[in-house]
Amino acid sequence: MKKVSILGATGYVGTELVRLLHNHPNVEITQLSSHSYSEKLYSEVYPHTYEVIDLKCIEDNPNLIDADILFIALPHGFASKIVTPELLEKTKVIDAGADFRISYEAYKEWYKVEHFGQQLLDEAAYGLVEWNKEKIRNARLVANPGCYVTCSLLSLIPLIKEGLVDENTIIIDGKSGVTGAGRALALGTHYTECNEGMKAYGVASHRHTPEIEEGVKLFANQGVTLTFTPHLVPMNRGILTTIYANLNDGVTEQNIRDAYEKYYRDEPFVRIKKDGEIAQTQWVKGSNYCDISFVLDKRTNRLVVVSAIDNMMKGASGQAIHNMNIMMGFEETAGINFLPIFPV
Amino acid sequence: MKKVSILGATGYVGTELVRLLHNHPNVEITQLSSHSYSEKLYSEVYPHTYEVIDLKCIEDNPNLIDADILFIALPHGFASKIVTPELLEKTKVIDAGADFRISYEAYKEWYKVEHFGQQLLDEAAYGLVEWNKEKIRNARLVANPGCYVTCSLLSLIPLIKEGLVDENTIIIDGKSGVTGAGRALALGTHYTECNEGMKAYGVASHRHTPEIEEGVKLFANQGVTLTFTPHLVPMNRGILTTIYANLNDGVTEQNIRDAYEKYYRDEPFVRIKKDGEIAQTQWVKGSNYCDISFVLDKRTNRLVVVSAIDNMMKGASGQAIHNMNIMMGFEETAGINFLPIFPV
Amino acid sequence: MKKVSILGATGYVGTELVRLLHNHPNVEITQLSSHSYSEKLYSEVYPHTYEVIDLKCIEDNPNLIDADILFIALPHGFASKIVTPELLEKTKVIDAGADFRISYEAYKEWYKVEHFGQQLLDEAAYGLVEWNKEKIRNARLVANPGCYVTCSLLSLIPLIKEGLVDENTIIIDGKSGVTGAGRALALGTHYTECNEGMKAYGVASHRHTPEIEEGVKLFANQGVTLTFTPHLVPMNRGILTTIYANLNDGVTEQNIRDAYEKYYRDEPFVRIKKDGEIAQTQWVKGSNYCDISFVLDKRTNRLVVVSAIDNMMKGASGQAIHNMNIMMGFEETAGINFLPIFPV
Amino acid sequence: MKKVSILGATGYVGTELVRLLHNHPNVEITQLSSHSYSEKLYSEVYPHTYEVIDLKCIEDNPNLIDADILFIALPHGFASKIVTPELLEKTKVIDAGADFRISYEAYKEWYKVEHFGQQLLDEAAYGLVEWNKEKIRNARLVANPGCYVTCSLLSLIPLIKEGLVDENTIIIDGKSGVTGAGRALALGTHYTECNEGMKAYGVASHRHTPEIEEGVKLFANQGVTLTFTPHLVPMNRGILTTIYANLNDGVTEQNIRDAYEKYYRDEPFVRIKKDGEIAQTQWVKGSNYCDISFVLDKRTNRLVVVSAIDNMMKGASGQAIHNMNIMMGFEETAGINFLPIFPV
Repeated sequence: MKKVSILGATGYVGTELVRLLHNHPNVEITQLSSHSYSEKLYSEVYPHTYEVIDLKCIEDNPNLIDADILFIALPHGFASKIVTPELLEKTKVIDAGADFRISYEAYKEWYKVEHFGQQLLDEAAYGLVEWNKEKIRNARLVANPGCYVTCSLLSLIPLIKEGLVDENTIIIDGKSGVTGAGRALALGTHYTECNEGMKAYGVASHRHTPEIEEGVKLFANQGVTLTFTPHLVPMNRGILTTIYANLNDGVTEQNIRDAYEKYYRDEPFVRIKKDGEIAQTQWVKGSNYCDISFVLDKRTNRLVVVSAIDNMMKGASGQAIHNMNIMMGFEETAGINFLPIFPV
Repeated sequence: MKKVSILGATGYVGTELVRLLHNHPNVEITQLSSHSYSEKLYSEVYPHTYEVIDLKCIEDNPNLIDADILFIALPHGFASKIVTPELLEKTKVIDAGADFRISYEAYKEWYKVEHFGQQLLDEAAYGLVEWNKEKIRNARLVANPGCYVTCSLLSLIPLIKEGLVDENTIIIDGKSGVTGAGRALALGTHYTECNEGMKAYGVASHRHTPEIEEGVKLFANQGVTLTFTPHLVPMNRGILTTIYANLNDGVTEQNIRDAYEKYYRDEPFVRIKKDGEIAQTQWVKGSNYCDISFVLDKRTNRLVVVSAIDNMMKGASGQAIHNMNIMMGFEETAGINFLPIFPV
Repeated sequence: MKKVSILGATGYVGTELVRLLHNHPNVEITQLSSHSYSEKLYSEVYPHTYEVIDLKCIEDNPNLIDADILFIALPHGFASKIVTPELLEKTKVIDAGADFRISYEAYKEWYKVEHFGQQLLDEAAYGLVEWNKEKIRNARLVANPGCYVTCSLLSLIPLIKEGLVDENTIIIDGKSGVTGAGRALALGTHYTECNEGMKAYGVASHRHTPEIEEGVKLFANQGVTLTFTPHLVPMNRGILTTIYANLNDGVTEQNIRDAYEKYYRDEPFVRIKKDGEIAQTQWVKGSNYCDISFVLDKRTNRLVVVSAIDNMMKGASGQAIHNMNIMMGFEETAGINFLPIFPV
Repeated sequence: MKKVSILGATGYVGTELVRLLHNHPNVEITQLSSHSYSEKLYSEVYPHTYEVIDLKCIEDNPNLIDADILFIALPHGFASKIVTPELLEKTKVIDAGADFRISYEAYKEWYKVEHFGQQLLDEAAYGLVEWNKEKIRNARLVANPGCYVTCSLLSLIPLIKEGLVDENTIIIDGKSGVTGAGRALALGTHYTECNEGMKAYGVASHRHTPEIEEGVKLFANQGVTLTFTPHLVPMNRGILTTIYANLNDGVTEQNIRDAYEKYYRDEPFVRIKKDGEIAQTQWVKGSNYCDISFVLDKRTNRLVVVSAIDNMMKGASGQAIHNMNIMMGFEETAGINFLPIFPV
């Protein structure tokens, strides 16, 4: 059993990691850290773990880490300080945050803070598993992708790589459940303020935008500038992305399907919906699946791709464990091989 | 007091009309019809009206109508048979359904049924109040717009009429609460099937598409072919539309704001949000307002317009009463002049 | 038009007062106060009031009040300082908080703070309108009842006053929507923490307990000691109380119905459900109604009373305005005479 | 690997069985039956199982069953016909329905239909695992308890068996998520009719009442007649029961705690909450746990017990698999040993 430590274990990504890793056949959780709840029993912070998780939270201090694998689930800006060449010599790191996902320049521009780990940015493998397995397998540091980004890139890369859509026309309309906003209190996520309502946020300014653009560049070898609009949906979990792009000349429905099948046929966690069936977040909740569906709008010659993930699983902790499995040589689907739960 | 009859009073649009008309200063509800609940007390069909509405449902039979004003809230295909020149001689009609909203050709193509009232299509005034007051004032028959259509047209017409956006690039991503699907039972609107989940539906095929296109043609004098994708959101009420369009050369934020102000400055039910504030369905629920907001995505030269209505009010029954007020010469805002209810 | 001032206008009770008073035929809102948002436009604190409410928040300072009627919607402990004999000479006061609801001794025991307005406690009329109209009519100061209390007392008083149930066996199981917890941020009302979950709180210790007991004593002239357990339900509005009590010997269903009819037959806002129909919060939401229903459990000789109100209306702001109408000699139902909104 | 067949696999209990059994280490699902969807791919009925469950539904015909273990998840009245001595000779049966839970007399009185398997009623083991392991271990037929019943009996039996409460004063106020009502369409579970609302149902007449009473008699050896009131809560999963009973003389908090510890200390799926912590459905969702908490209301000498389960897991399919594990000699917690999922 490999030892696992989680920095930032009391956020939602952290507690989802705890849940999944607790039942994982190859690892054992040995450390849970939390700045806010240091010295407190984890099961008092999260009563659903009562009588199961018997650890006290320790400080968010990288010097305390004693583990084969370290997950970091902290707000941006922390990991770039915590992850050092020294740390990487003693432990493999999977950063669930944003610090190692995008280029130094984009990070400074969109996150508006200094990056303290520039020398490690090149080394970090971008953890979009289906597209980067080889690099992840050999990585000491993996940057786990953003939630909207995962759903968007899995949908977009095959289309662009195969030259099926006009890369200047891409619009991503994203919808997310409220867990995406985390556990920190805010008026916008106070129950009575967001229940029974819907809103857009971060219009033309959301930080997942450059991450999607750089991911397309990296994996489809094509620069793009796209519009991305996230929305908050009154539900706990789930991301739905509705992606619009103009079709290139002569592209057929079969071309689209072939492109998806080409890249995802053997992937355990991507399901291409049959013709006429549209992805829904309900059908992936509690699982690590990404469901992808599409319709050609023949009147306008546009493609509409609708894709769904569970933002806490495929969009965060599930994908992080998928990355761990690849890095450590475990069975690829170990610990995350669940059917979706329905209804939940 | 004018006498009002409602055909199809036991659907959600019908019962919202009952609620609003009951308190309206100029009218009195004298007939409520329902095929399914004929002879049953209305308050047994809708217990919230207990001890207030003391009418028995009558059959959906146009011959029984004895009213100055008739609201029709029936599925499409009924009104085109019910509304005849003879009927219009004795009563003013506001049809909340689709039969008189679009052209004969579009109706046959998108609704796939015969239209039996072709001779009245020209006479019918399209009830998008802010854009058609003169015709509505003199009409005997008004076609109340669709819910998504109302929100979309109010957002789009000023932009196109003023030549601010490229009409070939319009994409409407719509999100609706579940009341939009009505009271008829279906698996997709069974509580546990749609709660905590999100989906797209009617992708590239929703019937509000031609209605939006014809509305733009009618009021902005510009043909368009656009993509419209509706989504179901786990909440009772509210529509949010996120509209994307490429800006024409040189168009500024101020140009957009001026266009909206030009047409809506004096409109009682359209509110243009201040710079930096984005419309949310929570802020209009229970009211007849349409809130419109926008952001220029300068990286892509696209405009993103986010607008919100209460689909049962401005998107259906509220707008129907607004139409009645205009037709009958009542005060324009009578009976629908509420502040939104928050939180509700 | 009488002038109205609201102290604490930016809480949920405050904003519901704003909504209702804005459309009230006899009053005009002239002052809105808020400690947290002083000097800020009210419509920036509550965007649903945009372009309608054009007031800046002033400080929560009683010296600034210039009004015929003052509503206080502050946390407990404030009103007992603010309301003085001098204040009552220039304005009528309706306190939506707890300070003037219960006896000095009970207040100290259950609220655990000093009461600074003891000399006014006797003068304050308890604002359970159906049971105290005469005193309210002549009052300068009215204590608006608690939400659970309103629903519980309206259900209990007729039964106890008529000697139908054993007063030693009363158990009240209350369920409330989340608006009851107010707008202050807390982990328990963070969307993702309370959505899709249910819990009890304040078990055997909720402060509405002594208020219910004193209300029974006041209006049914009978001391009681009862068990009250509130629960939080994942919805915005609504209170449902399920009340259990052993029937006294020989009491029949008709006796129960007669008791309710005796006291509520002519009350505009209490509806006794027909035999076989059970009250639901859906059927009262958005209105000032209290729906009361009951079933005799013959196997156990217990009575089960199920009652529903909208906690923001009948349970708070609606009842406060009902009190104002009585105090000021306005029409009793003015400004709160709505049908429930369904579905909302 | 033992072969498992599910009769009635397309209801919610059925599909939860499919999810859990699919990952169970000791069994393989070989047959899924459904009258309504016979010959249809299971993954078309439940798209969350797409690309995972590759079985066609067969008819609900007991003659087709070829399995070591049969789960029956049909409405009441079917199992009593299907389960015969001949069937039990070839397969072990776990009936998730009501047919073998209660006595012949109670069944006829409360379910109002004939029972066709009277000769097997004595043989059937009542599957409340914590209280009946020995009989379940040797059973050919297990009756899986009702959802409310499970939560109620686990809470009540220790108290009554140890003589701590007055058995004539028991009141159970139950609250359930909407999955408890199943997948069959009905107005009361139409999204917009039950969302944002709360109601009681089956007041003084719910069929789980005699099952609770008989369970207390069976395991605590004490006849009781109690009041049970179920309520519908707008959420998918979860049951909370709030149980009231008068304390017997001299009973202390420690006595209550000792009673629970005595019977549940070594039980893997019952957690007694620490003093001051109250059970919430959020903390058990997705798991097989029953959390039990209690408060003494010293003013009234009443005990309030608040307990929570996931109705689809511990209240149905999870408990059914727990029963299977015991019957088959598998590891007791195999396939159901999950941490709760939070937030979900």
